[in-house]
Amino acid sequence: MAVNLPLPSNLKPVPGIELGFAEAGIRKANRKDLLVMRLAEGASVAGVFTLNRFCAAPVQLCKAHLGGAIRALVVNTGNANAGTGEPGLAAARQTCAALASLLGCAPEQILPFSTGVILEPLPVDRLAAGLPAALANLKEDNWANAAEAIMTTDTQPKAASRTVTIGGKQITLTGISKGAGMIKPNMATMLGFIATDAGMPQPVLAQLLKDVADESFNCITIDGDTSTNDSFMLIATGASGVQVTSADSAEYATLAREVLALSQQLAQMIVRDGEGATKFISVVVEQGASREECRKIAYSIGHSPLVKTAFFASDPNLGRILAAIGYAGVDDLDVSKIDLYLDDVLVAKGGGRNPGYREEDGQRVMKQSEITVRVKLARGSAAATIWTCDLSHDYVSINADYRS
Amino acid sequence: MAVNLPLPSNLKPVPGIELGFAEAGIRKANRKDLLVMRLAEGASVAGVFTLNRFCAAPVQLCKAHLGGAIRALVVNTGNANAGTGEPGLAAARQTCAALASLLGCAPEQILPFSTGVILEPLPVDRLAAGLPAALANLKEDNWANAAEAIMTTDTQPKAASRTVTIGGKQITLTGISKGAGMIKPNMATMLGFIATDAGMPQPVLAQLLKDVADESFNCITIDGDTSTNDSFMLIATGASGVQVTSADSAEYATLAREVLALSQQLAQMIVRDGEGATKFISVVVEQGASREECRKIAYSIGHSPLVKTAFFASDPNLGRILAAIGYAGVDDLDVSKIDLYLDDVLVAKGGGRNPGYREEDGQRVMKQSEITVRVKLARGSAAATIWTCDLSHDYVSINADYRS
Repeated sequence: MAVNLPLPSNLKPVPGIELGFAEAGIRKANRKDLLVMRLAEGASVAGVFTLNRFCAAPVQLCKAHLGGAIRALVVNTGNANAGTGEPGLAAARQTCAALASLLGCAPEQILPFSTGVILEPLPVDRLAAGLPAALANLKEDNWANAAEAIMTTDTQPKAASRTVTIGGKQITLTGISKGAGMIKPNMATMLGFIATDAGMPQPVLAQLLKDVADESFNCITIDGDTSTNDSFMLIATGASGVQVTSADSAEYATLAREVLALSQQLAQMIVRDGEGATKFISVVVEQGASREECRKIAYSIGHSPLVKTAFFASDPNLGRILAAIGYAGVDDLDVSKIDLYLDDVLVAKGGGRNPGYREEDGQRVMKQSEITVRVKLARGSAAATIWTCDLSHDYVSINADYRS
Repeated sequence: MAVNLPLPSNLKPVPGIELGFAEAGIRKANRKDLLVMRLAEGASVAGVFTLNRFCAAPVQLCKAHLGGAIRALVVNTGNANAGTGEPGLAAARQTCAALASLLGCAPEQILPFSTGVILEPLPVDRLAAGLPAALANLKEDNWANAAEAIMTTDTQPKAASRTVTIGGKQITLTGISKGAGMIKPNMATMLGFIATDAGMPQPVLAQLLKDVADESFNCITIDGDTSTNDSFMLIATGASGVQVTSADSAEYATLAREVLALSQQLAQMIVRDGEGATKFISVVVEQGASREECRKIAYSIGHSPLVKTAFFASDPNLGRILAAIGYAGVDDLDVSKIDLYLDDVLVAKGGGRNPGYREEDGQRVMKQSEITVRVKLARGSAAATIWTCDLSHDYVSINADYRS
């Protein structure tokens, strides 16, 4: 029951990257649960990862391997390999070694990713046994299958493509993402992968990724639970022959704009498919003294179970939004200056109910499937936007049943 | 469907305080929604209040009036008089003036309290019209009715009494509380009132209250939403003739212990009657470097929708607890030292799954209606405990329907 989330279409292959999948039976039989992405020589890879202190074993290996000449990424679902201690690290190393041996490269040239249940041992034998099947169907035009292979509680695959002309050549960008619960990325999302056939030195790519993550995957929340496995990866294969070498160039600006647009699209897809989501909510906080305080207030609104259930009910019980602003932890906030809008409806003015506000106007907006909450703080020029969804019965059902 | 919450019984009158209620029709007809507590001359009153920046108009007046010679408290349900700006403050002043005029005292000798929907104008005329009826049934033995008169989404009234001997005389303490949603008190709870017939100078009483609040009402959470109206009040009538004048005395220690026990009992009653609650969860974090970091981790667990839905499902999906520990914001946490217990079951040891852990042991504990989560950080001697409940379908139903 995703919110205005079309199925992937017109996905464009990105020269320099091939994708292959398998049904390895990691947790359940007969579902795609293993993905390999093989990179052409010379590709650059950058990544940002969860700040959760219980960061998963594969995330720890990714951090260690990044910077080297990466030749492949491998993703399994069904098991997060997190909270698994030393045996988990060994399992992640085994995964890399198994794939490296098949590809004829070093284990350090592999980046491993896992997503699924935490605290359970990774069945690394089943994973390794599935790798040959994944390699057997490697091809460039395989993004739709790849998007399916990384799904967990997602109800739909998430993928999109863009093209842009740089230096007279057409550059392609294609990305996939997954995640529907335990979503409040902190530096990254559950799993997001974007590839382009532009080329870029790794340090420049890493900076671009960090900037983009802060304005896309780091702006979404479903339930406020920061995962142990969040990873957002950007791959530049260089197969187009177009090289973007400096962050000061016009080409960089063009590419960065496209990567940001694609990242925001993929991040918003995660919210649209949020567990149990029936509404897509944008929370915009403006006129703040700092971006940080705007984000604090936006997340306080976006995480409030009371605000989220009111959206689910289409009930303009909007005092709950004021309460969430008030407890956001901005200690010197002068609430008597705050205006609150629901789309175009001015609900609260100067910290109190707008005398002209009519319940039926709030009701009209609350019934929509896409709603913007706008808070004006009147204390500066900073702003922040986050995207979130409502809290429904289905969220409870999904998470009360997830493992069974 | 409260969790092991008996109906109030054996409530003891506290000499020096009389209580009266009315059905004022603040929001709905035919329900007790107005409470007056009249104090004998010479009573001391202390209070702690919400830190929500959108603190309600009555809370603002309470803060201004405290310290004077308080003669009565007045509580309405059905409307929070919060997010109501200047008109809301005027309505709270009118409330005080109306009661003061009936009691023959000054408006500044009245403390007003409101709880209910935010952002809607307080129907102060209906409130004032109900005051004579409340005064007509003022009596000392009226605590059970008082507990009912302050209920909102509570399914049961919450009240308890204790007695203790100080200086050879029997001292009585009786308290009431309310609240079931928008519960994550920050310095206080939704509404809690405790009265004793011991006497105490106001500054000593205020210190006692602050200490007690930090170990009782400030240790509970239902949904992480800090209300605009939280207030926790302690009244010492002195009618017993026993005066506790110094915080260094043995009498003070005895009284403080009793007030704390009663406060914890009343605070836990709120959690037991949490909206949709089916389980009562204690989260104990031990061996921390500071109480603050222990509380951060405890609240991170207690607020996680994923942890709370797992409790609802009796599903030992305990990796979710590790994830919540990991994103609690304790940046230098070494997770490889962390042990996690569910009651007596060691689930995770040294940051990974305890090799001896069996799913059926976790399952056994998860099926209980009362569960203790214990986290050992192995980095110091600080500790903290909070009390919370699970997240069920009924929480969503209650909050999707609250206003209708």
